[in-house]
Amino acid sequence: MIDLYTYATINGQNIVIALEEMQLEYNLHKVNLMKGEQQKPEFLKLNPSGRIPIIVDQDNGLVLSQSSAILIYLAEKSGKLMPSDTSKKAKTQEWMMFHASDLAPNLFNNFYLKALIKEPQLVAAQFIKDRYLNLYQYFDKQLSEHEFLNGFDYSIADIAAYPAIDRLCDSFVELGYDNIVRWHQQLSKRSAVIKGMNV
Amino acid sequence: MIDLYTYATINGQNIVIALEEMQLEYNLHKVNLMKGEQQKPEFLKLNPSGRIPIIVDQDNGLVLSQSSAILIYLAEKSGKLMPSDTSKKAKTQEWMMFHASDLAPNLFNNFYLKALIKEPQLVAAQFIKDRYLNLYQYFDKQLSEHEFLNGFDYSIADIAAYPAIDRLCDSFVELGYDNIVRWHQQLSKRSAVIKGMNV
Repeated sequence: MIDLYTYATINGQNIVIALEEMQLEYNLHKVNLMKGEQQKPEFLKLNPSGRIPIIVDQDNGLVLSQSSAILIYLAEKSGKLMPSDTSKKAKTQEWMMFHASDLAPNLFNNFYLKALIKEPQLVAAQFIKDRYLNLYQYFDKQLSEHEFLNGFDYSIADIAAYPAIDRLCDSFVELGYDNIVRWHQQLSKRSAVIKGMNV
Repeated sequence: MIDLYTYATINGQNIVIALEEMQLEYNLHKVNLMKGEQQKPEFLKLNPSGRIPIIVDQDNGLVLSQSSAILIYLAEKSGKLMPSDTSKKAKTQEWMMFHASDLAPNLFNNFYLKALIKEPQLVAAQFIKDRYLNLYQYFDKQLSEHEFLNGFDYSIADIAAYPAIDRLCDSFVELGYDNIVRWHQQLSKRSAVIKGMNV
């Protein structure tokens, strides 16, 4: 049994999708970031930096943050959604990290510069947004050649990327990133994805 | 034998450190970003998005980008610098992802907003910098309780984080992040680290 502490952010939703797809048993604990629940002492004991998602695996007592680290851990625990072949596994992690290092942080920064600081920096926020929308062209190229991001099968790379792409889909229609739009429509029908996005 | 395409950036140096520490044989190919060599057709064949680092493993033909994905791949290939125990491995990847998702992208964004765009956004760049310097307090806390970042042994988490911390060390002295400074001094004496930083 796994305890999941999460909220409806892009990196909070993808862990729910993964747990549902992998059919792992879990208890869902919502941490309402709008009410500052991530700063409560009991949550800070799990993650001193006060950020979600966090899992606690009751099987071994492991407390783990960072959505990418959690996704790899859950894939290895369940034996699902990450190929065991060395090269295919590496490509899965490559595409997951493209999302986690180059895209997700910049979706956050765009919001941070617009809405979370005392002197909103709208021009800078737009520069950040233009850059990440441009980087998504490589997702579109990959998905023009392959059904799924890692080039092989549905995997934690797709799950990591989905919630951010769901929020940006109107922009991708405008930009003509038709392959991302096709992939988004395909994934959005999965019951695990629907459940994760409604967390 | 591994071909490494890299340059003296924070994510370009850490792969050299890893290869040296793991004593894997490699050919070093410098890609001079200042001269735009990452946009040459032969490089874009390896990585369409024109970014370093890239490895090509001659053993299996794998072409891999994303420094975190490369570090995990090399650790598993060599059997070094990542614990095999499930929980310790997860903690290693957690701390590596903290660097790769929350810190490295923001060091880049600070530089991007100051130096790479037509209308430099200095106020926004400073907001980004203040945020990542603040997040490093959790590295300092971890290193006050443990010799290395994963809480156990020297690992790819330390190697991933080192080049960025090397650039920020003066700020950490000012901020009183004494545990990071101790860790930095300790690692800076390693021959693999010296070689990687001089790439």
